[in-house]
Amino acid sequence: MVTNRVDSGEAARWVRDEAFARDQPFGPQTLPYGVVDPGDGPRVAVRLGDHALSLRSLAGELGPLADLVSGTSLDPLLAATRAEWSALRARLTELVTGASRPPGAELLPLADVRALLPFTVGDYVDFYSSRYHAENVGRIMRPDSEPLLPNWTHLPIGYHGRSSTVVVSGTEVVRPHGQRRGTPMPKFGPSGRLDIEAEVGFVCGGPLARRVPTSAAAEHVFGVVLVNDWSARDIQGWEYQPLGPFLGKSFATSVSAWVTPLDALAVARVPVPDIGHPRLPYLVEDSPWGLDLRLRVEWNGSVVSNPQFADMSYSFAQQLAHMTVNGAVVRPGDLFASGTVSGPLPEQRGCFLELSWGGRDEITLADGSTRTFLEDGDSVVVTATAPGEDGSVVGIAEVAGTVLPAPPTPWD
Amino acid sequence: MVTNRVDSGEAARWVRDEAFARDQPFGPQTLPYGVVDPGDGPRVAVRLGDHALSLRSLAGELGPLADLVSGTSLDPLLAATRAEWSALRARLTELVTGASRPPGAELLPLADVRALLPFTVGDYVDFYSSRYHAENVGRIMRPDSEPLLPNWTHLPIGYHGRSSTVVVSGTEVVRPHGQRRGTPMPKFGPSGRLDIEAEVGFVCGGPLARRVPTSAAAEHVFGVVLVNDWSARDIQGWEYQPLGPFLGKSFATSVSAWVTPLDALAVARVPVPDIGHPRLPYLVEDSPWGLDLRLRVEWNGSVVSNPQFADMSYSFAQQLAHMTVNGAVVRPGDLFASGTVSGPLPEQRGCFLELSWGGRDEITLADGSTRTFLEDGDSVVVTATAPGEDGSVVGIAEVAGTVLPAPPTPWD
Repeated sequence: MVTNRVDSGEAARWVRDEAFARDQPFGPQTLPYGVVDPGDGPRVAVRLGDHALSLRSLAGELGPLADLVSGTSLDPLLAATRAEWSALRARLTELVTGASRPPGAELLPLADVRALLPFTVGDYVDFYSSRYHAENVGRIMRPDSEPLLPNWTHLPIGYHGRSSTVVVSGTEVVRPHGQRRGTPMPKFGPSGRLDIEAEVGFVCGGPLARRVPTSAAAEHVFGVVLVNDWSARDIQGWEYQPLGPFLGKSFATSVSAWVTPLDALAVARVPVPDIGHPRLPYLVEDSPWGLDLRLRVEWNGSVVSNPQFADMSYSFAQQLAHMTVNGAVVRPGDLFASGTVSGPLPEQRGCFLELSWGGRDEITLADGSTRTFLEDGDSVVVTATAPGEDGSVVGIAEVAGTVLPAPPTPWD
Repeated sequence: MVTNRVDSGEAARWVRDEAFARDQPFGPQTLPYGVVDPGDGPRVAVRLGDHALSLRSLAGELGPLADLVSGTSLDPLLAATRAEWSALRARLTELVTGASRPPGAELLPLADVRALLPFTVGDYVDFYSSRYHAENVGRIMRPDSEPLLPNWTHLPIGYHGRSSTVVVSGTEVVRPHGQRRGTPMPKFGPSGRLDIEAEVGFVCGGPLARRVPTSAAAEHVFGVVLVNDWSARDIQGWEYQPLGPFLGKSFATSVSAWVTPLDALAVARVPVPDIGHPRLPYLVEDSPWGLDLRLRVEWNGSVVSNPQFADMSYSFAQQLAHMTVNGAVVRPGDLFASGTVSGPLPEQRGCFLELSWGGRDEITLADGSTRTFLEDGDSVVVTATAPGEDGSVVGIAEVAGTVLPAPPTPWD
């Protein structure tokens, strides 16, 4: 894999110096890919600080690689190979750190563009790979039994979500209607326990593949996004047995507008925590693929949690190996998410169900107001950073959303 | 909705008379849509008896509707409206029942073409709407508790499956690897309890929609296929708690090559069985949308079951209303399946888990061999018919598949 060496000693550059600041998470060490529309149509871009650099505008500099990024989505890029991803990244690094502006290079302020969902989502899978989250949920939902079910330490539990529900960061989230527990009949109406799940998502690419060994994971994962898997806990709690979450999740799943390439995370690799017994052979990793991503969850501007992705018990390589070991195909555009990222400390919990302990404990925000679950008008922003080369910081772009009230329906 | 009146008194026709026999399930009363390739590329067709009538070859007869069926998949047709679906069907009925062959009309023997997956599958949802199946599974899997969970009579339980796993009838099914229960460690290897689920699937079309009332279901459902939701019971049994089936299902889901339009099923409508208490308002139906489809399950040529779709406790209109009531979008190409179709009688059970009562009872096939679950080389064919107008029979095209042995893996 190719990583970017930021030569901080270099003098004149055409990209403004702010993009090269040591603490700038979207400097040339990151170069995440997205799709932006300044008003005249979408184009593929990389983010540089608070600007989007149009890649169509650099076509003359990219040779045959230009075909991968001249369209209106990342789909052709995802369908390419890791060798092409690395070659493109190396060339873009040269260009953005070079002294002279390539002719026609279009550098658009993020404030002036709309960021779009950057790729066509194939299958969407959501895992459940934080032991702390699974244990906390077990304790809250099934207080009379063991918090962790026996299968949990042997396989990365997961389920398929609704692909058409995946939306880009910034999309407003309408409070969902649904059934919740009631006697003698269940109640129907807007969810009263609307929650978030702060997660890390993996965007698949490369050739179609089945039975992907952990050692080949990087051939089939292009990059990383943040995911907010919005969850209606009252709907989910009533519906989820025996076939799992359905309407409690399928109203909205938000993802970052920018996909941080795996290549940018080479120095963020950390071992995956021991799980207490040997892993089955197909889940053994040749090299560590845990990632030291530090998440931050803001609720109406107040930081309410700092989950650490390094605490996850299954890596994305293990998740991908598991997902395909039965012969299922992985395709470019498939998206799989880690599951809620929670740590051992209360202030590292990645959802409000855990932070409020099932609604029992109020969370106080900076303005003095208190919350257990989301109210209409609330906003949640999840951000993350990772260590980059030479002390730099690599950003995973924010996933943000604001809750809109449930609309009236004929059945209220 | 437009249905076809078969004028059996008509004399000369260009389509061969076999297609008009009273017991021919794919006569002009049915006209299911598919995509076939005789070797020079795929084309959209309707099935007429044992022939495929290319619709591209009828473009000159179809006016502006030709654009919907001139490509290589049903996607443009699904993205049209019910009014267009009905207009196209009416025109095709005129053409196939007419006396003279339209110039250039291409009528291909099914034996000479390969049938392809006819549409791009969007989101795939699988329901669980047979009370008999849910009760039987409950008794087999959780013998110490109530067979039906409390939510089951209030909502159509369902979950999302893997869209890229949906394959056309005839595709061979490779026995999946996976984990199953074991002590002290789970076992890994090919599934030893490979099963089928005989289901009916609904292919969505029409405009994007949310919160679809039961009364609008037909605007968003184009037609019907048969589904075999192949299931590895040992993998499923170990993995499914708490988030539902995952690898036990995601290796293969087979669907008919031909989509029978809802228009062909107008006289097959029957009321949905009473569920024992009032339905919540969003699940109330203005008109009956149960369907009198009679399924037949053949295992290596032996008929082992005759499930009746009229026994299902939730209609497709209720399933669609439920699936979208939380604001989730339904798109053309989305596919949702009914869940295993089982009836009150043992010979109406739609999966081998039920027929063998969890593997306890052997099933004897016509050749004298016995089975509990599928062996390598076994074939399963599910067919169905429905009552049509004037005593005709409407066919839902078969879904067939043969089991291939699990391949060796590095982890066996």
